[in-house]
Amino acid sequence: MKKTMMAAVFVEPGRIELVDKPIPDVGPNDALMRVTTTTICGTDVHILKGEYPVVKGLTVGHEPVGVIVKLGAQVHGYEVGQRVIAGAICPSGHSHACLDGLPAQDGPGTRHGLKPAGGWRFGNTIDGTQAEYVLVPDAMANLALVPDGLTDEQVLMCPDIMSTGFAGAENANIKIGDTVAIFAQGPIGLCATAGAKLKGATTIIGVDSVNERLAMAVHVGADTVINYKLLDPVDEIMRLTQGRGVDVAIEALGTQATFESCLRVLKPGGTLSSLGVYSEDLTIPLGPFTAGLGDHKIVTSLCPGGKERMRRLMEVVASGRVDLTPFVTHHYKLENIVEAYDLFSHQKDGVLKVAIAP
Amino acid sequence: MKKTMMAAVFVEPGRIELVDKPIPDVGPNDALMRVTTTTICGTDVHILKGEYPVVKGLTVGHEPVGVIVKLGAQVHGYEVGQRVIAGAICPSGHSHACLDGLPAQDGPGTRHGLKPAGGWRFGNTIDGTQAEYVLVPDAMANLALVPDGLTDEQVLMCPDIMSTGFAGAENANIKIGDTVAIFAQGPIGLCATAGAKLKGATTIIGVDSVNERLAMAVHVGADTVINYKLLDPVDEIMRLTQGRGVDVAIEALGTQATFESCLRVLKPGGTLSSLGVYSEDLTIPLGPFTAGLGDHKIVTSLCPGGKERMRRLMEVVASGRVDLTPFVTHHYKLENIVEAYDLFSHQKDGVLKVAIAP
Amino acid sequence: MKKTMMAAVFVEPGRIELVDKPIPDVGPNDALMRVTTTTICGTDVHILKGEYPVVKGLTVGHEPVGVIVKLGAQVHGYEVGQRVIAGAICPSGHSHACLDGLPAQDGPGTRHGLKPAGGWRFGNTIDGTQAEYVLVPDAMANLALVPDGLTDEQVLMCPDIMSTGFAGAENANIKIGDTVAIFAQGPIGLCATAGAKLKGATTIIGVDSVNERLAMAVHVGADTVINYKLLDPVDEIMRLTQGRGVDVAIEALGTQATFESCLRVLKPGGTLSSLGVYSEDLTIPLGPFTAGLGDHKIVTSLCPGGKERMRRLMEVVASGRVDLTPFVTHHYKLENIVEAYDLFSHQKDGVLKVAIAP
Amino acid sequence: MKKTMMAAVFVEPGRIELVDKPIPDVGPNDALMRVTTTTICGTDVHILKGEYPVVKGLTVGHEPVGVIVKLGAQVHGYEVGQRVIAGAICPSGHSHACLDGLPAQDGPGTRHGLKPAGGWRFGNTIDGTQAEYVLVPDAMANLALVPDGLTDEQVLMCPDIMSTGFAGAENANIKIGDTVAIFAQGPIGLCATAGAKLKGATTIIGVDSVNERLAMAVHVGADTVINYKLLDPVDEIMRLTQGRGVDVAIEALGTQATFESCLRVLKPGGTLSSLGVYSEDLTIPLGPFTAGLGDHKIVTSLCPGGKERMRRLMEVVASGRVDLTPFVTHHYKLENIVEAYDLFSHQKDGVLKVAIAP
Repeated sequence: MKKTMMAAVFVEPGRIELVDKPIPDVGPNDALMRVTTTTICGTDVHILKGEYPVVKGLTVGHEPVGVIVKLGAQVHGYEVGQRVIAGAICPSGHSHACLDGLPAQDGPGTRHGLKPAGGWRFGNTIDGTQAEYVLVPDAMANLALVPDGLTDEQVLMCPDIMSTGFAGAENANIKIGDTVAIFAQGPIGLCATAGAKLKGATTIIGVDSVNERLAMAVHVGADTVINYKLLDPVDEIMRLTQGRGVDVAIEALGTQATFESCLRVLKPGGTLSSLGVYSEDLTIPLGPFTAGLGDHKIVTSLCPGGKERMRRLMEVVASGRVDLTPFVTHHYKLENIVEAYDLFSHQKDGVLKVAIAP
Repeated sequence: MKKTMMAAVFVEPGRIELVDKPIPDVGPNDALMRVTTTTICGTDVHILKGEYPVVKGLTVGHEPVGVIVKLGAQVHGYEVGQRVIAGAICPSGHSHACLDGLPAQDGPGTRHGLKPAGGWRFGNTIDGTQAEYVLVPDAMANLALVPDGLTDEQVLMCPDIMSTGFAGAENANIKIGDTVAIFAQGPIGLCATAGAKLKGATTIIGVDSVNERLAMAVHVGADTVINYKLLDPVDEIMRLTQGRGVDVAIEALGTQATFESCLRVLKPGGTLSSLGVYSEDLTIPLGPFTAGLGDHKIVTSLCPGGKERMRRLMEVVASGRVDLTPFVTHHYKLENIVEAYDLFSHQKDGVLKVAIAP
Repeated sequence: MKKTMMAAVFVEPGRIELVDKPIPDVGPNDALMRVTTTTICGTDVHILKGEYPVVKGLTVGHEPVGVIVKLGAQVHGYEVGQRVIAGAICPSGHSHACLDGLPAQDGPGTRHGLKPAGGWRFGNTIDGTQAEYVLVPDAMANLALVPDGLTDEQVLMCPDIMSTGFAGAENANIKIGDTVAIFAQGPIGLCATAGAKLKGATTIIGVDSVNERLAMAVHVGADTVINYKLLDPVDEIMRLTQGRGVDVAIEALGTQATFESCLRVLKPGGTLSSLGVYSEDLTIPLGPFTAGLGDHKIVTSLCPGGKERMRRLMEVVASGRVDLTPFVTHHYKLENIVEAYDLFSHQKDGVLKVAIAP
Repeated sequence: MKKTMMAAVFVEPGRIELVDKPIPDVGPNDALMRVTTTTICGTDVHILKGEYPVVKGLTVGHEPVGVIVKLGAQVHGYEVGQRVIAGAICPSGHSHACLDGLPAQDGPGTRHGLKPAGGWRFGNTIDGTQAEYVLVPDAMANLALVPDGLTDEQVLMCPDIMSTGFAGAENANIKIGDTVAIFAQGPIGLCATAGAKLKGATTIIGVDSVNERLAMAVHVGADTVINYKLLDPVDEIMRLTQGRGVDVAIEALGTQATFESCLRVLKPGGTLSSLGVYSEDLTIPLGPFTAGLGDHKIVTSLCPGGKERMRRLMEVVASGRVDLTPFVTHHYKLENIVEAYDLFSHQKDGVLKVAIAP
């Protein structure tokens, strides 16, 4: 096996570049994965722009599909050569947070002035997946075998956007017959739309301004869609629900406008499920919040990880319930990843997700 | 029986006065209660000040203890002469909200520019309890028999503050061994403190600036208290929890400062349970909210009502688990209620709650 | 309006007959519905056979689709002429059970040596729906408007089997990616199968011995089916799950064999959701129950009722998520209902459900 | 450090004896604990009698309090010399079951014809704690620091009976104001009684035949107790609840009689929480089970383990909410453990729990 590998690293705000790095060796609880497909996430763009700080020289990316090439001495139940994925969030399994039912919040402490979301390690606190190889920590908690017959692209959304989007629907505790509105139909919002359908919502309303995304929303499960450039989505949703409001509103962008719209269409007793990564303080308007008397819930979800979560998501794919392969609008070789970042970060050419093959 | 009764009515902002009113007659599903004890709530003060608008001439008050004097033709299972209470919130039992598990949100529609909290009827949409008699709507859903041996004052907190405060603890889904901070130790906050203990929290931290209230917090279950005029409560709570933060933070005042402090001490994955009635937009600070990545929950609770809720709360009193009679610091006759409003609204003489006897 | 109506009544074990009865008058909280379509349930067959005792002369049936013809004086929000359904279970809304979140268990006390399932009134404690007219008690809690565009047969399953079957899936707390086995694919089991799909199960296994029913199981959502006359279903399910067992097993027949099979295929920590009406004591085998150490749950569900439940189920139908019209294999006039009972009780001619039109 | 240690091992049915064994060495993820206090559990008596089979020569016992003497190379965040406990159940943290929220069901497969309860390792699949030293597997998931100021005996019940008993109350989802009956007031039942109080039950009824145990039940939280040799507990509970039945019944013995009594006093919609280890098939009587129509739940719980659970339980002790030191009725040196087994297995001298000090 060769000693070095190509990896996309954060250099400085505005620059992610390919460099040569040593292929890492495994510790007792690690596994080394050869990456066969990965992708770029909106969070990676925040890193590129310097909006989310990481250490210079860190390999970026957190969505791996690949093959096991080496296993630590304490890692049992796997074999070299198996096709696997790992979640964007890699819980250790043994932290207080993990054992308390919060594996995504596995972190040791404060970071960047924010409180910990410490389960997120790839491309955040350790080298990530936009490389030829990636070291998977706590491998027994994180390596999930890809079922026979599924392609890399079929499972490429499992590590992050499918897990995150579905969590937006799951944590909203959707009941059969619920009406659900999803504000923003980018990759995460589309997965939340698919998740709302999987959980039994029967009126699913997708909101965006890009018609291609609204068409994709219908493809994954929306019953109706609203282009907010053509119609006021709050008025339209209140009209569609005869003034009743929605049972669940899912925020999938990370802005005041979408957050507030969610609250404005939410029925008393309803749940606002927030998935966005915000970049400034949020305002809760008094009226839609019923001055605090509305029995409202606001829940936020970080992408659930771990091998059992990945197993379940791949089951969804294998069952044919949800097919996210149409999300992959563009393909790149790892050696052209800088070009892929340019396309993705500027939302050129109708891009939804790019597949990167090392 | 006489034809008219004394009642405290809203006249105009700043004025609640006693007037003579006809004693109402019962419809098929109503009951008429002779009020033996009632009290004044912070919400009544908002009404007095004109901050929460009600119709002029409406009888105020929503916390009744009394005796059944007349029953509607369709009301079965009760007898004239029985001692009863009814919750501040009177669910009909038959609305969509009630049948969907949200009895407090029973309302027909929008009111005052806010969305409905329509289950609240006494002193809001129908005549209230600060009178010699009160008509209880949907009596079969709302009349709860007072167990033998309990005094009026022992059950006087059940209709509102005990139900509300406990809901703050219940809806936060407190687990055995949780650390819980309660910001503000007025009557509602004190009940939330008692509720946190009832649900299994083992480190309960009460925050206020009035030492008498902090002493009462210890009486009802706080393990430690913080006078925020002496110590920064956020720093102190983070110190007490070794930087871990609390599992649950309960807001019991309705201000930006307390709401924000709750978020600042909340662990990733924790729940902010909000009980306050706010009077302006709220701000969610980005950092403590972890930019939306913290798996946080924010839940709001309106006082649960209905006869089953009241039965359960009176069971708590009867069991001796919680004794709220020390909350009653002052006693007034109904004829002196204007004086009682003056005392209570200006927080004079260390008042916590007043008992009003018609 | 005429004074009498045709009604199918229980005469004695083995005999349900048509008689003429007075059309009932409405009390203040009632509504009178003209029945346009109803159906026969397995429970009605138990009544016919005398296995479930009811008063002689009682009109049987509990699944009404119809039109409002008269409203009690206290019933608001409805109009004569509206198309409505009511659930098989008619909660009052105002009982302790209703207000405690258990509307189906609304009953006043013991019956037939069993404990109360008192929310079930039609054809059990009051006259039922296999008649030209039926009186709906507590009408404001129970009348649900049929959305425009839905036919009688599209909503005919909502009052009972759809509500019951879905409850089997809902109360099992199915998670995305779960494997679920449903034992027996009669009307209830088929609805549980559809419900499991609606809640996010991705491997759904239907078990029965009738190939037509297994084909219908595939139609409503089963991923695979097992004819237990050809293959041992326990062995086959353990094989399909690689020895892991199922997350949820749903019992939909009411026999020791199906109950026990559920337990035998259940993973540690899994849920057995029981829908069947049993006719003798059940045995829990020690091994599959792991001697009580398996973190297993056994939950039973009685058909949820009330207008909000009916609204939600009709939303499922309107959304196109589930189409149960193929269940209606036979049509009868009310005047021929004795013939319909003969067909249905003997499972002749591949009958699944019959539509009865007065 | 010496090379060998004294350990109590299973020899054959009826014989547990002390032998000399090598002190084990640590693997990368293990810790070696010097046991300072341990105890004997009812399950150990089943092992002694040969009713629960283990390998000959296995060290028995699963309730350790001790001091860290050696840490594996991958175990961080701990120091030699720290006082620690570990749960009876040692989850790995990285199994599918662990990551799916079922850490107690961590096992790899079938055992003894039963399905796995694989998280239980001490004295079951690996050497246990009735020895001078014990190896703690997956130490980072399992070692919990004893807070300063707590004695060995104060925390001795945390690893098993407190965790199990509390789980019986937690998994029954007790609500404020619930009535709870606990059948059998041995160590587990007493902990369930304490747990019911911690979760907000307000009428707690303890059932046993030994007056000392009933007195202890009152000490830990029972509001009333029934000696079933003097009064029929089913009749008495139905009388106490005015025929309503209990919200939750907890089975804490493992017999048909107690299981069935639980069901007989359970209200429709109530939960039977089973903690006992049964030794034969159970019968569910048709009537109390309402033929499957009662919306009943039956839940079983295996002792939750892991360091976070232990931390929470020690918080309960430290808060003074629950004091279980009176349970320790007898003290033995490890060298006299055979004598302790004789006393404990024959329930001599009013024994409740014994403390064993190596």
